[in-house]
Amino acid sequence: MTTIKDVAKQANVSVATVSRVLNQKGYVSKESEEAVKKAIKILNYQPNAVARSLYHKTSGIIGLFVPDISNPFFPELARAVEDAATAEGFTVVLCNTDNKQDKEQKYIQVLQQKYADGLIIVTGTESVEHILSTHIPVVALDRYISEDIPTVVSSNKQGAIDATEHLVEQGCTFIAHLRGPIGVTSADERYEGFKQVIEKHSIAHVVIDSGFEIGQSEMATRKLLEMYPSIDGIFASSDVTAAGAMRAAYKCHKSIPTDIKVIGFDGISLGEMLTPALSTVQQPIYDMGERATKLLMTMIEKKELQSYRHEFKTKLTIRETSVGGE
Amino acid sequence: MTTIKDVAKQANVSVATVSRVLNQKGYVSKESEEAVKKAIKILNYQPNAVARSLYHKTSGIIGLFVPDISNPFFPELARAVEDAATAEGFTVVLCNTDNKQDKEQKYIQVLQQKYADGLIIVTGTESVEHILSTHIPVVALDRYISEDIPTVVSSNKQGAIDATEHLVEQGCTFIAHLRGPIGVTSADERYEGFKQVIEKHSIAHVVIDSGFEIGQSEMATRKLLEMYPSIDGIFASSDVTAAGAMRAAYKCHKSIPTDIKVIGFDGISLGEMLTPALSTVQQPIYDMGERATKLLMTMIEKKELQSYRHEFKTKLTIRETSVGGE
Repeated sequence: MTTIKDVAKQANVSVATVSRVLNQKGYVSKESEEAVKKAIKILNYQPNAVARSLYHKTSGIIGLFVPDISNPFFPELARAVEDAATAEGFTVVLCNTDNKQDKEQKYIQVLQQKYADGLIIVTGTESVEHILSTHIPVVALDRYISEDIPTVVSSNKQGAIDATEHLVEQGCTFIAHLRGPIGVTSADERYEGFKQVIEKHSIAHVVIDSGFEIGQSEMATRKLLEMYPSIDGIFASSDVTAAGAMRAAYKCHKSIPTDIKVIGFDGISLGEMLTPALSTVQQPIYDMGERATKLLMTMIEKKELQSYRHEFKTKLTIRETSVGGE
Repeated sequence: MTTIKDVAKQANVSVATVSRVLNQKGYVSKESEEAVKKAIKILNYQPNAVARSLYHKTSGIIGLFVPDISNPFFPELARAVEDAATAEGFTVVLCNTDNKQDKEQKYIQVLQQKYADGLIIVTGTESVEHILSTHIPVVALDRYISEDIPTVVSSNKQGAIDATEHLVEQGCTFIAHLRGPIGVTSADERYEGFKQVIEKHSIAHVVIDSGFEIGQSEMATRKLLEMYPSIDGIFASSDVTAAGAMRAAYKCHKSIPTDIKVIGFDGISLGEMLTPALSTVQQPIYDMGERATKLLMTMIEKKELQSYRHEFKTKLTIRETSVGGE
């Protein structure tokens, strides 16, 4: 492998000069700089990333914290983050936290030791002190953590309003909301939007906590459909829980969209894989992941952020579960 | 931050002694070693991972190459790899290659600069020379690349035999196979298994190339169902393409499982989210990811591998798309 010494010899300068050029620190004459650059090109020299890390205390590594990459919402975000990071020469370390603080802390410790340059966090344990105390740049994605942390979210409340209005327009007269976990801001805001429309139109309704998991939402929906057989519309707080509601309707011999209309939230590719295809509130997932990564880059470069809150508009996407069927 | 000097002072030894203990190289007396370990504990000293990388030319980083993490097969593998790697103190860098050789090469270059210790590759570009030439330990997961690379796969052919026999037992008399990409070993082996059963029973059949993508498989299945309305069984080469077949049946007003029975391959969580729930050939995805990571660790430790081919048994998992319905 070509070393810095080979470059110095080829350029006819000292090793210290090559180092100054590579690290863009200290005075180097125009001629020497050109000679070094030419030598690097001729020898196809690749500066050792590890040695540069030690010198600059940066690594080109960012950590991506997700609760669980096998939950289908997160891979699409991860893809966007990885694409945007790679475009800027950064490398993404994947960290599955299971929303556990001890796992987060363990990852933070490992990443600090590797001089990680920043973190993108798509997770929410209750305490954030352990994250803020690291002084590593952090961006929160998909959910609000603290006002000290730049946040990229979508317009959850407006999206929920659009979804519920759509069910009302389709003639639903008794609407169930499968709400996400209490205390998770995105889930809370979607619930607020639902409530606003329901109250405006004085529509019969019922709300049940179904987390963000399919098993839980299938069970919750079955219970609801047994207790209230006249439910004819379901707004689920995520596409995954909407899939659970669809399974429950099937088990209760209710046809979608004829007997019950269903709409989800997220816009992950799962929705298009379902039969019938799921109507949903589309978050611009890829754009959100990309924005979070670009914000983090800005922070890593120690530039000022223009805004700490970045909210993306959602889009009502009507497929097959919420229209027609009569 | 605590430095190696603080540790030396606390332990009343030289910095060189602390370094020898940390790097487990050179002679250190029993007493000095204990004193250093005690000092590290008291001061909560965290050895600088970057400095150790430079010394040992290892980093504790492994690269995970997948075509696209947002394809629902890969997140479950990624989760297993990350869990197993973290348990051994390793960090996983996520690399989306889109099956493109230039992207693979770029990642390899970046990872080499960071002294990555190994690669797990779940992808298949045609040439592998650029991977083998790195001399970084590599394990191939889910598909065979070359006999020089340890490989973790499942029993694709036997799984396909089980799936096809199941459709025959359920009374199917005209079976379509949605085959995966030609040249991808897992897809080719599944096709072989299908063919063997079909020939044994002399069953009417048709085979169509539908890749591993849902859009392509929905289109291919619609075409088949229009050309051959008597198709009553479908064996799809993946769960994602099975979901596409289900969508096509819905569009053609065919009921599953009454009119057509469907079975997939993979056993990803998507299958349980579908309505009706998808029968499938379950690969032990988590165990496969874990085994690949452990093999890689063995290679990183420069220990001998007992075997280069690790084949896991698949399991026929009957849910709702392939049974009953009359």
